[in-house]
Amino acid sequence: MNYTSEEANILVQALPYIQKYYGKIMVIKYGGNAMIDDTLKESVIRDVVLMHYVGMKPILIHGGGPEISAVMKKLGKEPEFVNGRRVTDAETMEIVEMVLAGKTNKGIVSIINNLGGKAVGLSGKDANLIVAEKEENEVDLGFVGQVAKINPGILTDLLEHGYIPVVSSVAIGPSGESFNVNADHIAGEIAAEVSATKLIMMTDVPGIYGNFEDKSTFISELKIADAKKMIQNKQIGKGMIPKVEACMTALAGAVERTHIIDGTMPHSLLMEIFTDTGIGTMIVP
Amino acid sequence: MNYTSEEANILVQALPYIQKYYGKIMVIKYGGNAMIDDTLKESVIRDVVLMHYVGMKPILIHGGGPEISAVMKKLGKEPEFVNGRRVTDAETMEIVEMVLAGKTNKGIVSIINNLGGKAVGLSGKDANLIVAEKEENEVDLGFVGQVAKINPGILTDLLEHGYIPVVSSVAIGPSGESFNVNADHIAGEIAAEVSATKLIMMTDVPGIYGNFEDKSTFISELKIADAKKMIQNKQIGKGMIPKVEACMTALAGAVERTHIIDGTMPHSLLMEIFTDTGIGTMIVP
Amino acid sequence: MNYTSEEANILVQALPYIQKYYGKIMVIKYGGNAMIDDTLKESVIRDVVLMHYVGMKPILIHGGGPEISAVMKKLGKEPEFVNGRRVTDAETMEIVEMVLAGKTNKGIVSIINNLGGKAVGLSGKDANLIVAEKEENEVDLGFVGQVAKINPGILTDLLEHGYIPVVSSVAIGPSGESFNVNADHIAGEIAAEVSATKLIMMTDVPGIYGNFEDKSTFISELKIADAKKMIQNKQIGKGMIPKVEACMTALAGAVERTHIIDGTMPHSLLMEIFTDTGIGTMIVP
Amino acid sequence: MNYTSEEANILVQALPYIQKYYGKIMVIKYGGNAMIDDTLKESVIRDVVLMHYVGMKPILIHGGGPEISAVMKKLGKEPEFVNGRRVTDAETMEIVEMVLAGKTNKGIVSIINNLGGKAVGLSGKDANLIVAEKEENEVDLGFVGQVAKINPGILTDLLEHGYIPVVSSVAIGPSGESFNVNADHIAGEIAAEVSATKLIMMTDVPGIYGNFEDKSTFISELKIADAKKMIQNKQIGKGMIPKVEACMTALAGAVERTHIIDGTMPHSLLMEIFTDTGIGTMIVP
Amino acid sequence: MNYTSEEANILVQALPYIQKYYGKIMVIKYGGNAMIDDTLKESVIRDVVLMHYVGMKPILIHGGGPEISAVMKKLGKEPEFVNGRRVTDAETMEIVEMVLAGKTNKGIVSIINNLGGKAVGLSGKDANLIVAEKEENEVDLGFVGQVAKINPGILTDLLEHGYIPVVSSVAIGPSGESFNVNADHIAGEIAAEVSATKLIMMTDVPGIYGNFEDKSTFISELKIADAKKMIQNKQIGKGMIPKVEACMTALAGAVERTHIIDGTMPHSLLMEIFTDTGIGTMIVP
Amino acid sequence: MNYTSEEANILVQALPYIQKYYGKIMVIKYGGNAMIDDTLKESVIRDVVLMHYVGMKPILIHGGGPEISAVMKKLGKEPEFVNGRRVTDAETMEIVEMVLAGKTNKGIVSIINNLGGKAVGLSGKDANLIVAEKEENEVDLGFVGQVAKINPGILTDLLEHGYIPVVSSVAIGPSGESFNVNADHIAGEIAAEVSATKLIMMTDVPGIYGNFEDKSTFISELKIADAKKMIQNKQIGKGMIPKVEACMTALAGAVERTHIIDGTMPHSLLMEIFTDTGIGTMIVP
Repeated sequence: MNYTSEEANILVQALPYIQKYYGKIMVIKYGGNAMIDDTLKESVIRDVVLMHYVGMKPILIHGGGPEISAVMKKLGKEPEFVNGRRVTDAETMEIVEMVLAGKTNKGIVSIINNLGGKAVGLSGKDANLIVAEKEENEVDLGFVGQVAKINPGILTDLLEHGYIPVVSSVAIGPSGESFNVNADHIAGEIAAEVSATKLIMMTDVPGIYGNFEDKSTFISELKIADAKKMIQNKQIGKGMIPKVEACMTALAGAVERTHIIDGTMPHSLLMEIFTDTGIGTMIVP
Repeated sequence: MNYTSEEANILVQALPYIQKYYGKIMVIKYGGNAMIDDTLKESVIRDVVLMHYVGMKPILIHGGGPEISAVMKKLGKEPEFVNGRRVTDAETMEIVEMVLAGKTNKGIVSIINNLGGKAVGLSGKDANLIVAEKEENEVDLGFVGQVAKINPGILTDLLEHGYIPVVSSVAIGPSGESFNVNADHIAGEIAAEVSATKLIMMTDVPGIYGNFEDKSTFISELKIADAKKMIQNKQIGKGMIPKVEACMTALAGAVERTHIIDGTMPHSLLMEIFTDTGIGTMIVP
Repeated sequence: MNYTSEEANILVQALPYIQKYYGKIMVIKYGGNAMIDDTLKESVIRDVVLMHYVGMKPILIHGGGPEISAVMKKLGKEPEFVNGRRVTDAETMEIVEMVLAGKTNKGIVSIINNLGGKAVGLSGKDANLIVAEKEENEVDLGFVGQVAKINPGILTDLLEHGYIPVVSSVAIGPSGESFNVNADHIAGEIAAEVSATKLIMMTDVPGIYGNFEDKSTFISELKIADAKKMIQNKQIGKGMIPKVEACMTALAGAVERTHIIDGTMPHSLLMEIFTDTGIGTMIVP
Repeated sequence: MNYTSEEANILVQALPYIQKYYGKIMVIKYGGNAMIDDTLKESVIRDVVLMHYVGMKPILIHGGGPEISAVMKKLGKEPEFVNGRRVTDAETMEIVEMVLAGKTNKGIVSIINNLGGKAVGLSGKDANLIVAEKEENEVDLGFVGQVAKINPGILTDLLEHGYIPVVSSVAIGPSGESFNVNADHIAGEIAAEVSATKLIMMTDVPGIYGNFEDKSTFISELKIADAKKMIQNKQIGKGMIPKVEACMTALAGAVERTHIIDGTMPHSLLMEIFTDTGIGTMIVP
Repeated sequence: MNYTSEEANILVQALPYIQKYYGKIMVIKYGGNAMIDDTLKESVIRDVVLMHYVGMKPILIHGGGPEISAVMKKLGKEPEFVNGRRVTDAETMEIVEMVLAGKTNKGIVSIINNLGGKAVGLSGKDANLIVAEKEENEVDLGFVGQVAKINPGILTDLLEHGYIPVVSSVAIGPSGESFNVNADHIAGEIAAEVSATKLIMMTDVPGIYGNFEDKSTFISELKIADAKKMIQNKQIGKGMIPKVEACMTALAGAVERTHIIDGTMPHSLLMEIFTDTGIGTMIVP
Repeated sequence: MNYTSEEANILVQALPYIQKYYGKIMVIKYGGNAMIDDTLKESVIRDVVLMHYVGMKPILIHGGGPEISAVMKKLGKEPEFVNGRRVTDAETMEIVEMVLAGKTNKGIVSIINNLGGKAVGLSGKDANLIVAEKEENEVDLGFVGQVAKINPGILTDLLEHGYIPVVSSVAIGPSGESFNVNADHIAGEIAAEVSATKLIMMTDVPGIYGNFEDKSTFISELKIADAKKMIQNKQIGKGMIPKVEACMTALAGAVERTHIIDGTMPHSLLMEIFTDTGIGTMIVP
């Protein structure tokens, strides 16, 4: 590219935000269409690499729903869900792990490296990063777990050497077995544990609405107490609940700001960071 | 365990070898039955963790043939081989990567961590560790590659912080695509690049024989020149050839000693290291 | 500012250049109208602060012609020039030093700090940074010197701690006396001594022309040999000669690229750095 | 010099004091005749360089009254004082800054370097070392300020690398403007901020007297409470008041000892440090 | 040695203990027959070297009773004891120091180095490691002292560089004189000061008995309170008392476990460390 | 002490020498009367502590002839010499080691620490500092050895942490036995191995004379070639020869200057260092 003077000026406008977040850890839950559409994928990841190069320390957390179901179907196994949670028997868990840690994770790593970053892919098993315990539900969901402990040492070691950690949502159980853990929850727990400055959750919608049908009810800032009421009132949809919960977990730690943004909007990540008002819905204490 | 005095004495006999290899990098190609049989698996990995704790710096390299074919068959895809090399179309490559980086690799990592080590699993994509180029063959084998470059930075960074790196034999191509590369060759290249003190190749047989049928022809030390002749004369079998080649690559680097040992013999790794005469076949310049 | 998606995209276009110059030392000769006009001044300095925050290590070198003459006149002393060089008696030298090290230098430092950088102003006396010897001319110009030695330790110590060094063109003589040294020459010498990646000389014109009257003769790349001929042929004007000489000095060291750019064009610095073709005239070996 | 045995013995007598102050920060307010008379100047500065080489960490703070007035007069501007404070309009401030940061400061730096030290000159603008706010007085004194904040990072960074920092009494205001701040006060504030072991204020008299006319009333140790009474009773003269205040500020921080000594007595600095009883007046809590 | 698979297995059994004590400081009071019998000596010291190589940080403390008396007799001086304490006049102290610091200490150092460790011998005078004061007794024992202060800096500096410190029981008094201090007590004090994980006291018996005549009364775990009663009841013999006291001192510090073991049993040190139940008597709070 | 201005001035005269030797290693062979007379002893050692505090890195090497013979006599053993070399049977070697490493060495250490330094005493056994081999002579001298190898690691580790190493002239043989090695030779070898700036040999005479009877023949500078001739001509006495040889060894390494000085003259060490002309005889290449 050859910058014009006006374009260079736009660059300069980013300076106050670059200064503000210099050296800060930013945990990004990467997901939704931004992980499916190839153009969008590269665009989001380039934003992350840019964040790294202007001095921030991004950590990417990802799950990988659609890919898992696709592989399962190829293997002649019908995905089964209870209340939106995947029933995960041993065979399914094996597929989940192969897809998340072997395909999705390394795919993201590869794009980052291709764009000039130095990424290292991790699952929750690496250096015991994410320790899980079985999630108790009315219906037995099998190897579905919840975070019991984060061992963040490998993340800080990698950040210190200039790597971008990419974490898949597979966790390790007490006796070395694998657990399928909600990636949103993992993002919240990791953000809290590494004292991230921001936790940014990517979804496929602009954020939270008082009434999703009425776009004028968009909420740009939402208190935890109000979010809880909205969940009780079923104003917040099922897919959004774990994202809101992740924000709550992060805020209960030392995380300064938590955001739910639209990953399908090009450069939404940068628009959130390099802006006073931000975009999306910010969850506040 | 409660040691008797005699047993403690056996411990003490290891001291000269512990001193000799203190702080040295040992590259181990892990494979064969030692990777399939669960008891053997845990035994070999415990040996590796012990090596770490008595001051060595082990790096594990693994492939994963049988598991790949098993998953392929489940997916209704018939594995195909030409001259013992897997024909790897795009769909196969995806399976190879999922199995190696998502299942086999994380499985080994999990066992190491369970035994008290701190392992981090890597594929050749992580931090661009293994860069491959397409291997040219008479028959097009698809995404079968050979090592073009090793970027060992992530290995030395992890070793420095006390992690045990576990590397799967998936490599990254020039435009970010995945390549299936022979794990033996990768072990040889990595050993050369990190200036390992030893390269140890695990197989399912005791080593190389002049005539495999006649156990009395076992060769405990084999010169490169002689090995080449034996390959030409077809005295060395197909499965053994890449192991011998890996040793040659390592010796052409700064690696001091290269060994082909029987991974099915309990503690063969320790028996090679903590012994003057060693076991298996040592390839020498 | 609130970025639109298009504007964020412009940011992202800078990524390849940010990566290319990450951690590299950039020596900038700051001067001309960019140092006089207040708006331009702040604009240029903000560009420098941005360079720092996206990972480069800028060093600013400045002289300060007009301000010196202004103070001299206030003190009732008429500036005198021979061949464009200031005749510098002891009293003039004192004024030169006060203005450069006490006013111009600290003024630049103050703006950088105000824009969020951490600048430290230096004269050539600080830690013996610039040692000069008397310049021999047909006419005795008094305390006009040329660089005898650069002691770059203080520059690298400051860069290592994240400071932006700002250097005024006052040098120290063998017995501690002050010398007035051409700031262009100092920039060239320092760039060579610290192995800068780029030396960028700011002027008030777009670069070098074959014939300044004919804008179509603009030269975007000029070989040293050709530059020497153009100086002999008086195609290169007096003010431009020391800039070209500085580029030659830098190239004779390990500096990769040297540029003469128009400091009066807003963001010319960024336009030079964040562009493939660059702007201005590039002097090449 | 060729030491006799007796002379070497004198050297050895300094050992207990060298041990006592090894690695300790010593803030020295340099001023008065010791800054005007050339022989005295070199003598004092040599003492400072010696302090550095025997393991102490000296920081020099200076103002520069007489030189400022001299330059002002040359510029046809009559210095004006209210209650001993210089009325400082914008033009005067510019002169103050040029003289202090450009002439006096660099002059001291140059002598230190000539004597084998490595000095770096700083004004309060460098790395925002001294932030000031306007001093409120009955009469508006213009750009006369008082210390609002010390940012000592640049001092400790320089000390760590073996440099001797030399600080001129120019401070930076909230919007980047310059302020003329009493150098005595700055010395007290810096000493407190860097947890100096000693603050030594140089004057032109031996210290504080009960009655200056009667030399027998010399006070070698003075409590803060008593000093305050003496100020109220006007027993302590105007020039001495800011020095006493600086000592109080330092003592309110973690500074161990504060001294007012006679800079015109050769080696008074060493005589204070390398002596049990010390010289001058010590202000104690 | 050439390990059999069974022998290698014994090695592997040590792994959990190696992991448990990795990087931990182990203070060992070396004494009794283990210091006299040459075979035993080498065996014990080899155990210590092994401890170092498998990641522990051993510190050896020794006295040297029999050797002292032997040298004294050669010098025609009859050793004299009061209540089991050596009467130590100036001449005796000189002999004690020569034997302990010059002969016994360097002898141990030499064996360690010969076995591949890097030992440095220290007396309490080195870097003022052990400061003593005269022990007040009914009978004046001369230069018999008790620990007044441990300066552990030299120990941690040496451990950090991979040395094994060997400390003889000579201490320095307030005016530089030598003191003979009980080595058991020194071991306890040092263990407390360096926050050792274990203190291991070597004796010539298996540990403490309720009734030494009746081997069935062996006590494998003894509370401090009970130990005190046993001392009062004279159930614990004179030689054992300082060992028990050392354990108490250590436990009063941050030491986790304290043991009294039989140094004459081959590899008793390893048997204590590499075992769940341990051997000997463990003193607990 | 209370310095007068004149006395402080003497201090300041030392500055150029302090600067010159800042951070430099100085190897001092301490011996002769300076080690016997108590006043002289303390005086010399105080000089060494001063050297440390003004930035030099002294290493002390000592033997201990008279004390050894004294102890031998007490033990009823008659010292025996052949050509000025002590016949050293096993029993004598034991005494030599006890006296040197246990008494003389720790005595010096104790005085240094008392004067405010931090000394650590070493024998050649510590960390295998001095490895010796048997010296072959016409007459078998027993355990008299010569330096085979210096392992200087422990010296540089201790210097780095601010300790003053004190080394006794006991060396370790190939199988761990002790050897009595000439302390002068050790000083020369260590100086060469640590690249000392100066080697200073202390004797009881002012230096070397052409003819010792005629004080006017004093030689202040002596070339190696001339020294060799003087040894052949027996102009240099037996006691002086190993000192001259040590200087030659040091010069053959990277040592800059070697000196033979009179340790009985108060402060001769400082007079050598803090002087242009130096004292004593300087041996030059």
